[in-house]
Amino acid sequence: MMANPIEFYFEFGSPYGYFAAQEIDAIGQEFDREVIWKPFMLGSAFKATQSMPLMNVPLKGPYCVHDWERMSKYTGTPWQMPEKFPTAILAAPRGFYWLKDQGKTTTAITFAKAAYKAYFADKRPMWEAEETADVAAECGIDREEFLQAVQTPEVKARLIQEGQAAIDAGVFGSPFIRVDGEDFWGWDRLPMVRDWLKNGKWG
Amino acid sequence: MMANPIEFYFEFGSPYGYFAAQEIDAIGQEFDREVIWKPFMLGSAFKATQSMPLMNVPLKGPYCVHDWERMSKYTGTPWQMPEKFPTAILAAPRGFYWLKDQGKTTTAITFAKAAYKAYFADKRPMWEAEETADVAAECGIDREEFLQAVQTPEVKARLIQEGQAAIDAGVFGSPFIRVDGEDFWGWDRLPMVRDWLKNGKWG
Repeated sequence: MMANPIEFYFEFGSPYGYFAAQEIDAIGQEFDREVIWKPFMLGSAFKATQSMPLMNVPLKGPYCVHDWERMSKYTGTPWQMPEKFPTAILAAPRGFYWLKDQGKTTTAITFAKAAYKAYFADKRPMWEAEETADVAAECGIDREEFLQAVQTPEVKARLIQEGQAAIDAGVFGSPFIRVDGEDFWGWDRLPMVRDWLKNGKWG
Repeated sequence: MMANPIEFYFEFGSPYGYFAAQEIDAIGQEFDREVIWKPFMLGSAFKATQSMPLMNVPLKGPYCVHDWERMSKYTGTPWQMPEKFPTAILAAPRGFYWLKDQGKTTTAITFAKAAYKAYFADKRPMWEAEETADVAAECGIDREEFLQAVQTPEVKARLIQEGQAAIDAGVFGSPFIRVDGEDFWGWDRLPMVRDWLKNGKWG
């Protein structure tokens, strides 16, 4: 019997999701679990939890800005604050599902990593569909096909549907990891995810 | 030159503060740093950050309830959900500063640990001053003196003042650890605190 996969929920505009994205595939490989990448729009979950982007919260905002800088050094992950943040990142998650629905899951994940890097390490304007299509092209995806696809009602609806499914499943943050029915919210919990995969149920 | 102390901010009604309280003194000892315990009322910080107790947030509430149960098993810390939660825990932090202001810092910390255990492990009604005085008495503190002290305007004002000082200093959560001017929010960050104390500035 195959072991359950790791479901990796993330938002393309989430710094903590970006940091977790650097580690999640290695965790999957270490414990022989498939990792299913599941981008969604965190904004919808914020409505359900009456939350707002950390960056906009008094006291928490300045803390997080410093935290992302030191996490970069702590984890060895490149980081630069984007020019525009927070903002809606739409073409990337739409493009992800468009690729995945064609059975191109590996390409979709490669693109997801490139999109994260473009936004959080290279200061590229990933809130723009044109720039996102450039990143897709750099991953070997047809630029014009990508650009057209992410503007169709079907692909737009697909992302909304994934976001609603995430909330219905109890997902409220980024990153959010589900494995064996157990939920882990936040980059900080990756050590606990590892421990779960290694030792199973505690107590 | 003495190394800087570790400032350990916490709220007596905070489960994550309770879990961190089990580990913080050992961290201080390991790295030869004094730990200054700083209880405050998180409710005031919630106003500043437009937040509310996690337990009351849709989706996050059920997640946390399960999280505290599994953290108990993961860390080996006794845990039982209090009969009344969340609720204002006032006598404990007031009593803490009353003890500390008499120079009885060690007794204050012993009492803080006992108060946390009473509420989060033993289901005792720590929202009641009488019960809190019982816990104080079990720590060798004069029960009647404690009970009278925590009802005086001076001691009440002392706690309010500490809470305002915490917010003014940028503290917004529980637990919240400050060392060498570096802030760490949440039980999840204790490994990063250890790494900071071991290796100093990253990068």
